[in-house]
Amino acid sequence: MNIIDNPLSSLNQHSHKHWMALALREAERALQRSEVPVGAVVVHNNRVIGRGYNSKEHLQDPTAHAEILAITAAAGSLGDWRLVDCTLYVTLEPCPMCAGAILNARIPRVVFGADDLDYGACGGKLQLCSGKYLNHKVELLGGIEEGKCQALLDEFFRIQRQRQKNNT
Amino acid sequence: MNIIDNPLSSLNQHSHKHWMALALREAERALQRSEVPVGAVVVHNNRVIGRGYNSKEHLQDPTAHAEILAITAAAGSLGDWRLVDCTLYVTLEPCPMCAGAILNARIPRVVFGADDLDYGACGGKLQLCSGKYLNHKVELLGGIEEGKCQALLDEFFRIQRQRQKNNT
Repeated sequence: MNIIDNPLSSLNQHSHKHWMALALREAERALQRSEVPVGAVVVHNNRVIGRGYNSKEHLQDPTAHAEILAITAAAGSLGDWRLVDCTLYVTLEPCPMCAGAILNARIPRVVFGADDLDYGACGGKLQLCSGKYLNHKVELLGGIEEGKCQALLDEFFRIQRQRQKNNT
Repeated sequence: MNIIDNPLSSLNQHSHKHWMALALREAERALQRSEVPVGAVVVHNNRVIGRGYNSKEHLQDPTAHAEILAITAAAGSLGDWRLVDCTLYVTLEPCPMCAGAILNARIPRVVFGADDLDYGACGGKLQLCSGKYLNHKVELLGGIEEGKCQALLDEFFRIQRQRQKNNT
């Protein structure tokens, strides 16, 4: 478990798991469509106001990550690009693009599941959310339902390897 | 002028100015809609396959930067999220979100106009495109039509200040 910042970790873990379960449901939708299974929800006043799952292959859009789709949907729900009272739950540590979107949207809190040591921009590979850039600091909490989030990713890559094996 | 990488700077400057003029036209559209004037085009085989201008306020979408819209449009044109033979022209140095999108889309070349020392992620404030992250290095050339690009930004902020003055 990777707890980067303390304030969020003191909040109700049951609550974090509840919202992460909804993000996991989104990730399962991605898996069903043969996408890298990542899902996200944006929570505002105890309500999901935006959700998304990785749709890069289906849409053939390199920006169609779960977080981008969830953030755009959330801003649409509020009618405001400033997601200042929101928490983003995402099953995998955000990449630089998504971390940049989190900063641009002024999201104050991000809870993620699995670490991404190759591309993660919330401490895994680099750290864009520390307040050093864009004058905005994001409270981060990693490792919530990490096992379930990682298991979906492992399942995806197992299926991919099996497909490649069958094709050769 | 900020020439970060050499290979691109040796290409035809006239050609760079031609494509940047089209990005500037997009930026002017943003200015007409009272948006921070940033415009972008994606060029493939001497043809614009995607264009966009900053639409954050109009769409109330924090991800609706010029580059994101142009990249999504370009991927739609090609039917492929991999923009491997493309060059992105943008009037302002990309922010971390857009630099991340450039990396995710595997865009090999980015030409930009004005530097952004506050938020730029192509050397201005930080450097995400050096190949240190995401195993993808982007050739960068800054400073093309820098004066015209910066003049549009200055005009926007002049109008904003005037509006605020009139309202007080």
